[in-house]
Amino acid sequence: MIELTGKHLIAGEENGSGSDTFTSVNPRTRQPGDLGFGEATAAAIDAAVKAAATAFRETRRYSAEHLAGFLDQVADEIEALGNQLLDVTDQETGLGLPRLTGERGRTTGQLRRFGELLREGSYVEAIIDSAQPQRQPTPRPAIKRMLVPIGPVAVFSASNFPFAFAVAGGDTASAFAAGCPVVVKGNPSHPRTSELFARAIIKAVKRSGFPPGYFSLLQGKGTAVGQQLVTHPGIAAVGFTGSLRGGRAIYDAAAARPEPIPVYAEMGSVNPMVLLPGAVNGQADELAANLVGSLILGSGQFCTNPGLILLIDSVESQNFIQRVAARMADAQAGVLLNAQIEEGVDQAVSKTLEKSAVTFLTGGKRVPGEAFCYANTVMQTTSAAFRADPDLQEEHFGPVTLFVVAESAEDLLQTVDALHGNLTASVHAASDELELVKALFDRLQPNVGRLIFNGFPTGVEVVHAMQHGGPYPATTAPWTTSVGMTAIKRFMRPVAFQDLPEELLPPALQDANPLGIWRIVNDEYTR
Amino acid sequence: MIELTGKHLIAGEENGSGSDTFTSVNPRTRQPGDLGFGEATAAAIDAAVKAAATAFRETRRYSAEHLAGFLDQVADEIEALGNQLLDVTDQETGLGLPRLTGERGRTTGQLRRFGELLREGSYVEAIIDSAQPQRQPTPRPAIKRMLVPIGPVAVFSASNFPFAFAVAGGDTASAFAAGCPVVVKGNPSHPRTSELFARAIIKAVKRSGFPPGYFSLLQGKGTAVGQQLVTHPGIAAVGFTGSLRGGRAIYDAAAARPEPIPVYAEMGSVNPMVLLPGAVNGQADELAANLVGSLILGSGQFCTNPGLILLIDSVESQNFIQRVAARMADAQAGVLLNAQIEEGVDQAVSKTLEKSAVTFLTGGKRVPGEAFCYANTVMQTTSAAFRADPDLQEEHFGPVTLFVVAESAEDLLQTVDALHGNLTASVHAASDELELVKALFDRLQPNVGRLIFNGFPTGVEVVHAMQHGGPYPATTAPWTTSVGMTAIKRFMRPVAFQDLPEELLPPALQDANPLGIWRIVNDEYTR
Repeated sequence: MIELTGKHLIAGEENGSGSDTFTSVNPRTRQPGDLGFGEATAAAIDAAVKAAATAFRETRRYSAEHLAGFLDQVADEIEALGNQLLDVTDQETGLGLPRLTGERGRTTGQLRRFGELLREGSYVEAIIDSAQPQRQPTPRPAIKRMLVPIGPVAVFSASNFPFAFAVAGGDTASAFAAGCPVVVKGNPSHPRTSELFARAIIKAVKRSGFPPGYFSLLQGKGTAVGQQLVTHPGIAAVGFTGSLRGGRAIYDAAAARPEPIPVYAEMGSVNPMVLLPGAVNGQADELAANLVGSLILGSGQFCTNPGLILLIDSVESQNFIQRVAARMADAQAGVLLNAQIEEGVDQAVSKTLEKSAVTFLTGGKRVPGEAFCYANTVMQTTSAAFRADPDLQEEHFGPVTLFVVAESAEDLLQTVDALHGNLTASVHAASDELELVKALFDRLQPNVGRLIFNGFPTGVEVVHAMQHGGPYPATTAPWTTSVGMTAIKRFMRPVAFQDLPEELLPPALQDANPLGIWRIVNDEYTR
Repeated sequence: MIELTGKHLIAGEENGSGSDTFTSVNPRTRQPGDLGFGEATAAAIDAAVKAAATAFRETRRYSAEHLAGFLDQVADEIEALGNQLLDVTDQETGLGLPRLTGERGRTTGQLRRFGELLREGSYVEAIIDSAQPQRQPTPRPAIKRMLVPIGPVAVFSASNFPFAFAVAGGDTASAFAAGCPVVVKGNPSHPRTSELFARAIIKAVKRSGFPPGYFSLLQGKGTAVGQQLVTHPGIAAVGFTGSLRGGRAIYDAAAARPEPIPVYAEMGSVNPMVLLPGAVNGQADELAANLVGSLILGSGQFCTNPGLILLIDSVESQNFIQRVAARMADAQAGVLLNAQIEEGVDQAVSKTLEKSAVTFLTGGKRVPGEAFCYANTVMQTTSAAFRADPDLQEEHFGPVTLFVVAESAEDLLQTVDALHGNLTASVHAASDELELVKALFDRLQPNVGRLIFNGFPTGVEVVHAMQHGGPYPATTAPWTTSVGMTAIKRFMRPVAFQDLPEELLPPALQDANPLGIWRIVNDEYTR
């Protein structure tokens, strides 16, 4: 058992700065915890970033193998937290032990997969163009290029994935893998969980002999800590998972710096799902069951929650909507993470229901009781109303979905063209509808990061090919992903070496290819 | 011979909007040309962007082969402009026919090299993770990912490379290669050159059967056209080459949009060059000659001009500085592109010379006569003064360099640590100084895009491995390059396809790999 202190952990040292204290709140009982956490002061933030900058002077030279060993160690230390982690996080989030056990596996698995990526080694994108001393009118120098780590990274941890998108989540794992020190701003909804993860990482830092500034945790409830962190000149990039409002504020602050830095903010989306006649006419009951399962997963608190469902008007479609509404009404409403989310979904749904073009089907209210809880909610509108009102594309973060009924296939395609940026879009159809499916995917593609056929957006595989991102407002950087192996590229930048002697080149660029990695040499892929 | 009209060219049509007219000025005579150009109006800008958006709905589906054919056609049409292009541009820029002939070859060569990249095909970064239907507890879907074009691109053309970084320069070539329509804001210093290039591109658009909105040219002298262009909701990304002030204004405008977009601004730098004792003690005369050649290339109007030269104090170093100053004084001062550049270099040098720690060696004044011209200028300061005053890191855009004399190797290393972001850094040394060279490169690397050994930063090879970029203020996007084959990545973004039937997948992601491109399939590179 680890004794929690409520302190910030800066380069391995406890720091008790900050007078405004807060605690976590048990979402099942609304009871505050007994451990107070303070807002990190400007001095604490400065100390954390300076320690990260000091650490970077060493770790930017570390080999991939060295970094991979550290990632494995972090995974081991997280597992060593054992049931204490699951219990503490369950108390702070109400997500339940089965979900948290699965998410822990995802989190440690992700760290180890980045280790495998490093050991394979080709992720540095080595490219070599050899010298051409005989070229006329001037000789061509040798140009060799690879990716190097970008610098200290600030990571903002999310409330809805207290493991996988939090202190040791995907942003931290990919920044660590790149060789970048990380300063995490812990999510105020689960500060004890944050401290447990931080203590695990600090153990790994020590055991691996990494400089202590490679990781720090700052706690804070307000916006000041984050603003100060991203505007600190020592921070080179930012990873953020959270709300549109929060992500945009961080983005704006970083863009206004004297030296702007990239902000990789993943801010959620409504994940449109199109259900063609073949899907709702066919195995409609199974589809409805699976859809409701996706909608209420984690009490709907997923950035990939299918919050918008488009279909073509028909008796079957209307029956399907009723079926989903009935299943949503029957399903037990889940516990929400905190008071802000409960308040946020209540306000968002109320705003939508005030619109005359929106029909209420089920839910639409808080569930009385001790827990933070909101009824599983289904609403309906028309495609014409949807296209006319951009408000209807705003996310209702929680167990909520909005059906949009189009008059025809053509009307559906027009509605698809009106969609804003999203992380995903899904189409369900029968095998004889592929022509329309093709047209839909073609029109959905410009505005999304991931297209899904006959599946659900929840459940984001941690694989090399995953793209978890998308055009604004889904993210601030649609050319990047926050899940999957290429997430490491966010924290690297290329450097070219011109005519350097072999002994001064990194191993990845030496002619003999001592690492045995895939490279592009004189325009040819080779190992 | 093409008859020039002074009009904007929007989706292939002439547009004469804009009442405030300007002309180009012959920099050798300060005489204005007789052809007036107008500032593009808001309506003209809107028309150009809307035409680009319409074109993108088609061209985003074009095959790499189709796009490659278009790039070849653009190169052919540029060559077909013949001597008219060289003559017009020489009149507008004073750069001289030999330089312009070389730059034309670089520009058409670059277009054709992007064509080769497309035909090879692996640039789409296809990654496939196959389905695992037997996985427990849930089956794994198939995830397949590749890069797709990002959308219509705004390109700001530079004055100092009227071919290679202008209307059909690297930004346009890489955006075209990606499948993105381009709206160019022509540089007001050479509007006739811009129109010639635009007419060549429009011919290629027609001959290749591309939609007319794939390219438009907007002329303008003030900042309003650019601001309106980058804040138009139809623009998805921006390429810019020019001054720090101009680039930052564009970056700020794009970041403040309701939907922010990436700005790839390359804004120049001072390109520090370190000369170790073995270099200045050895073949000092040859080094001085080559250095002066690099400094006065294009009248010093290169973003890679070596504007900062660091060395360790010694009799030989002082002699070397005198030798360079003498050669700079002897070399004929070149013609500058326009009045703003002449005014800018005069102001920048005057500001530096006002500092008590800076010693004047040669130049430092405008050269009287008809032409825009500034004397080749050399100044000197100490490493301590340099570290204490960030102003001394500001660019003097023109034939100007500042020597910084360190007291020792250790003092030199400390000075290197104080450097801001730069496109390049170079070290000249003898073969017995590699230990210090290694330490220097190691400390220079975090702040530059390209490291050069015993060479000069001017002359940026258009090869796959080139990295022409660097930390702010060199660029706003240090993870990208504006020269070399990977420049295409700026205008692409990844999309993942989950469980799509083979017939709905792009050829690059079909299991049979009909394009025969290199891909990562289940974590293995394969073709």
